[in-house]
Amino acid sequence: MNETRQIPVGVSARHIHLSQEHIEILFGQGAKLTEMKPLSQPGQFAANETVAVYGPKGSFPKVRILGPARKATQLEVSKTDAFSLGIPAPVRESGHIEGTPGMRIVGPAGEVTVEKGVIIAARHIHFHTSDAERWGISDKQLLKVRVGGERGLVFENVIARVSPDFALDMHIDTDEGNAAGVSTGDFGEIIE
Amino acid sequence: MNETRQIPVGVSARHIHLSQEHIEILFGQGAKLTEMKPLSQPGQFAANETVAVYGPKGSFPKVRILGPARKATQLEVSKTDAFSLGIPAPVRESGHIEGTPGMRIVGPAGEVTVEKGVIIAARHIHFHTSDAERWGISDKQLLKVRVGGERGLVFENVIARVSPDFALDMHIDTDEGNAAGVSTGDFGEIIE
Repeated sequence: MNETRQIPVGVSARHIHLSQEHIEILFGQGAKLTEMKPLSQPGQFAANETVAVYGPKGSFPKVRILGPARKATQLEVSKTDAFSLGIPAPVRESGHIEGTPGMRIVGPAGEVTVEKGVIIAARHIHFHTSDAERWGISDKQLLKVRVGGERGLVFENVIARVSPDFALDMHIDTDEGNAAGVSTGDFGEIIE
Repeated sequence: MNETRQIPVGVSARHIHLSQEHIEILFGQGAKLTEMKPLSQPGQFAANETVAVYGPKGSFPKVRILGPARKATQLEVSKTDAFSLGIPAPVRESGHIEGTPGMRIVGPAGEVTVEKGVIIAARHIHFHTSDAERWGISDKQLLKVRVGGERGLVFENVIARVSPDFALDMHIDTDEGNAAGVSTGDFGEIIE
């Protein structure tokens, strides 16, 4: 294992995933998300559509929707964003929204208040199965990833997510990207 | 050196230091800052006074002034804040403002546009001389500091600042605090 395990970094701005039910409430009966641009993960895309999101303290008027539709609606924010909204979002893996706080979502055709779904996404790496095998990494493993430069740091507890449907990419939020001085397209290295 | 080198962490929100000249432009001739509460460093305080700060893209209406007056005016923001303002602030040590971008500052009695002074403060630790001696740390040394917990990470390039006028405290900005999941009063450990 002399190969250095370099990982492209993607810094995720705040975004929302919506269920088909909520898409239709917010954008009208039969509405579908339309693709603005593809994301690093196969089949995933940034939609042309946005919604407004409200917490008890603040709001974001234009939150990008990522498609396709998901089983459950989920807002992913940074801790900075969570403070602005006044929503005490916990750090969670995507999809693990039981017990998380909710929000009000407003679209052009309607609005919906959800009881749960606001999270700060736990830092993670998507591995294609072949990358994980080559590097001896298993699904759910916690990794350490070093980023160099003047704000260099080592992220601990980076969750490995392995699937034949994934493309190699590390996802961190804007607080983490800013703290490390990295932008999408920079690289980190798995050191442990 | 078996003692663990535990450091209290202080997360600095955006703030501004003003020269006496600028205090008088912004608050009136002869004006002085008044103390709201003391800070961790001896003699330093958060003032009751605030100013509005403007960049080309955004503004903050109420930026806390830290006193006492300094030789040069300096705004310290997170990278998130710098994006909001539209000011390309570099990561710098406090006081090192040559070549940094400026801003417009508005107070109750006047306003001033400065040509330089907006920085993202480089992460650093204030050591009293006795702490530094006990732990074998010298002024300007670059350290690694680990913070545990679910967002655990290791900050690299943490600048040691040693003075008999300092009290032991690590200063990071809100992006860094949020990325590491720490708040003022938590602890980090110098690991290298």
